[in-house]
Amino acid sequence: MEQWRWPSRYDDDDRPTDGQPYWFPYRETMPPEEREAAILERVRDVMRWCWERAPFYRRKWSEAGVSPETIRTLEDFERVPVVTKEELRSTQAEHPPFGDYLCVDEAEVVHVHGTSGTTGRPTAFGISRDDWRVIANEHARVLWAMGVRPSDTVFIASFFSLYMGSWGVLIGAERLGARVFPFGAGVPGQTRRAVMWCREIRPTTFYSTPAYALHLSEVAEDMGVDPREFGLRRLFFSGEPGASIPSIRGKIERLYGAEVFDSGSMAEISPWMNLAESAARAGMLVWQDMVYTEVCDPRTLRRVPYGAEGTPVYTTLHRRSQPMVRLLSNDLTRWEAGPSACGRTYPILPRGIYGRIDDMFTIRGENVYPSAIDDVVMALPGYGGEHRIVISRQEAMDELVVRIEYDDATRVAGEAAIDALRRRAETELRTVLGVGAKIALVPPGTLERTEFKARRVVDDRDLWREARAT
Amino acid sequence: MEQWRWPSRYDDDDRPTDGQPYWFPYRETMPPEEREAAILERVRDVMRWCWERAPFYRRKWSEAGVSPETIRTLEDFERVPVVTKEELRSTQAEHPPFGDYLCVDEAEVVHVHGTSGTTGRPTAFGISRDDWRVIANEHARVLWAMGVRPSDTVFIASFFSLYMGSWGVLIGAERLGARVFPFGAGVPGQTRRAVMWCREIRPTTFYSTPAYALHLSEVAEDMGVDPREFGLRRLFFSGEPGASIPSIRGKIERLYGAEVFDSGSMAEISPWMNLAESAARAGMLVWQDMVYTEVCDPRTLRRVPYGAEGTPVYTTLHRRSQPMVRLLSNDLTRWEAGPSACGRTYPILPRGIYGRIDDMFTIRGENVYPSAIDDVVMALPGYGGEHRIVISRQEAMDELVVRIEYDDATRVAGEAAIDALRRRAETELRTVLGVGAKIALVPPGTLERTEFKARRVVDDRDLWREARAT
Repeated sequence: MEQWRWPSRYDDDDRPTDGQPYWFPYRETMPPEEREAAILERVRDVMRWCWERAPFYRRKWSEAGVSPETIRTLEDFERVPVVTKEELRSTQAEHPPFGDYLCVDEAEVVHVHGTSGTTGRPTAFGISRDDWRVIANEHARVLWAMGVRPSDTVFIASFFSLYMGSWGVLIGAERLGARVFPFGAGVPGQTRRAVMWCREIRPTTFYSTPAYALHLSEVAEDMGVDPREFGLRRLFFSGEPGASIPSIRGKIERLYGAEVFDSGSMAEISPWMNLAESAARAGMLVWQDMVYTEVCDPRTLRRVPYGAEGTPVYTTLHRRSQPMVRLLSNDLTRWEAGPSACGRTYPILPRGIYGRIDDMFTIRGENVYPSAIDDVVMALPGYGGEHRIVISRQEAMDELVVRIEYDDATRVAGEAAIDALRRRAETELRTVLGVGAKIALVPPGTLERTEFKARRVVDDRDLWREARAT
Repeated sequence: MEQWRWPSRYDDDDRPTDGQPYWFPYRETMPPEEREAAILERVRDVMRWCWERAPFYRRKWSEAGVSPETIRTLEDFERVPVVTKEELRSTQAEHPPFGDYLCVDEAEVVHVHGTSGTTGRPTAFGISRDDWRVIANEHARVLWAMGVRPSDTVFIASFFSLYMGSWGVLIGAERLGARVFPFGAGVPGQTRRAVMWCREIRPTTFYSTPAYALHLSEVAEDMGVDPREFGLRRLFFSGEPGASIPSIRGKIERLYGAEVFDSGSMAEISPWMNLAESAARAGMLVWQDMVYTEVCDPRTLRRVPYGAEGTPVYTTLHRRSQPMVRLLSNDLTRWEAGPSACGRTYPILPRGIYGRIDDMFTIRGENVYPSAIDDVVMALPGYGGEHRIVISRQEAMDELVVRIEYDDATRVAGEAAIDALRRRAETELRTVLGVGAKIALVPPGTLERTEFKARRVVDDRDLWREARAT
């Protein structure tokens, strides 16, 4: 049942036959101009919904001199002020627990999730039954586009708690009719168990963060198991940029003998799979009929033309409990016009989300993105599986040290091989970054493995001094 | 929609009005004889289903000379051989992954779960879509009987992975229409986050293991938070006997200022909430129309009369994917005839599940159950929150040492208070057990806290010698 109106309706029993490439053929392949006209209608519907129900939005928009009635074009919509995560946190502190942007009666909230709060007060997600179905139905479409079918088994290796990644995949795969194995992560010994269960159940499809898939393959090897024995056909990821970084993607594909798909935007705007690769695997598609995405200039917060770089700003088109209207991501991407080789007419992010505006640092005038360093370092022959980017912004002159583990073969080969690796790392990083980095090589197993999102950038003056002296 | 037939049908949109005490009034309050007549029909339905589809059951029953057609009374049914967990594991090893007792086409399995495998090869649960709905619908009934209503918020603090406890509660509470907060457990720092979120979201209903609830209250106190601030109305538990042990139950009720409910049988027979207290809170009800339970003599494996002690043997009456017919629990309980004060006519387990046949040990001819020791020790004034039961079965003469932490107040009060605690523990344990135990008191914080199922019995000769010498 292909309907696209406000409020959204889904037929939970409907699904395409296995041979169909599209879940909603018309919505996914319609001419972009026609889609934009429909998006404008939806945007106005969502704004009206928020205007009538959410003091947060009415206040914010009134101050900016906009209202649902003043938005007559998508260009007009660019004048709607963006929402920041900080605003969400502070309105929740004032109006606990869900903030005054909750647009349904609080009694209608049937699922509570939230952010982990690693960077301050967490944000609570209050999701209504209808919105839970929105997430399930929209994610099923995206998984379908990756090639997942009811005959597939989806192994979900990420932690089931606040993190919307795991839950969004679970309910999407359930809705699609696939077999799900919600394995989770977190407790000691769980990764070894994951290896054992993957061999036993032989899932076709695997979900986690890229860092966890790399960790799992190392644990498997420790156990004498080749991850190819799992028989996976595809792994898809979210939570960190890794899957769109060619070296990481290539490494995971070689280790598992399976195809890698990148996906994911932000938990706040679930269905967060609104950015995701299809079976064509030529960059993430921007599923505009799910969440309207504007790639914006970070200063003006207006759309940049296709081909240019900017930060995504998201507007949910189906959510009613906590709709997001122009949520600022602070992520960094470049977009291009569609269609994709799969026939979908959505815009495309050829390199996915490759950085954070606020992660970016400047070394001697050059903008440096950690993901660019990851890309170079992880492709080095002799790379031992982990590294750290150590910067010091407090010093008079910013300097960059990259600590890299070398692998066992390099260790055995001795000093000459280690020196060769260092020189190669220096050369390649200088080429890509435009500035030099000091390389500190460390023996295999020195650096702690990251199980969740890889956090490799260290901004620490002492560690920087120490690493520089290595 | 109150139907009771094979195969089961549920109306997922139906639910009683809030004032109704019963979800299915007739099935829950019908005369026991009439229920037993219906159970006999269901048992034969289930056996026929298994006979036609599961080589495992046909083989086993043929060897024992029984078949669906030879079962004409519930007494006849007692001749059906029990299934042991070891048998499930070995048939799964031969017929991976779900064993030859899977009674649906393997393609119909949409959910994979399993045991943690702490005691050997894990058992895989392959659950069909219909059976997933069985679990959700039946658990909703039980939660309703505890007093949970759509206006409640259910905080699920247990780990979401293989463990069926968490998933069974989640889908039951969703089906009931309550708000769910699937928080999970497992990663470092998660318990502190649980304290923070409970204060923020103020759930009415809490689920975990009893050991975890005690741990959470300690963490809360460390953070300067009184668990009563959460505003909980009820906590319900499964996974270990604690909630039916009066001292543990009383302690949790005082700490949280809320009512405690016990529930749970075995993951293999999900809907595992088939044993659960209702709002009357006078022992766990045996929801016989969900899972037919026979409390049996462990030697004859035939039912014992009401009033007597035995081990539960379970037969699922609604499951089609992996039906369990006479699964032996090796748990220990005593049952009585209903009705309960709540009006339900099910049999009652006044003290819940209070031991394991295989946990029981013998000291100088007396059968000793660890839960009986837990009960005494945890009620001692001056008890510091943790203890260990140390036995040595290898010694010529069995002896029992109980290591008990004393609390801070006792430590401050000094030697005399510690001596008084020791004497009181000795006296009370001798009274309850019929044999003497050596008491070794240790300072606060000595013993590691158990986050999941409390494992307090230690069978270790060296530790026993050391503890004895204290």
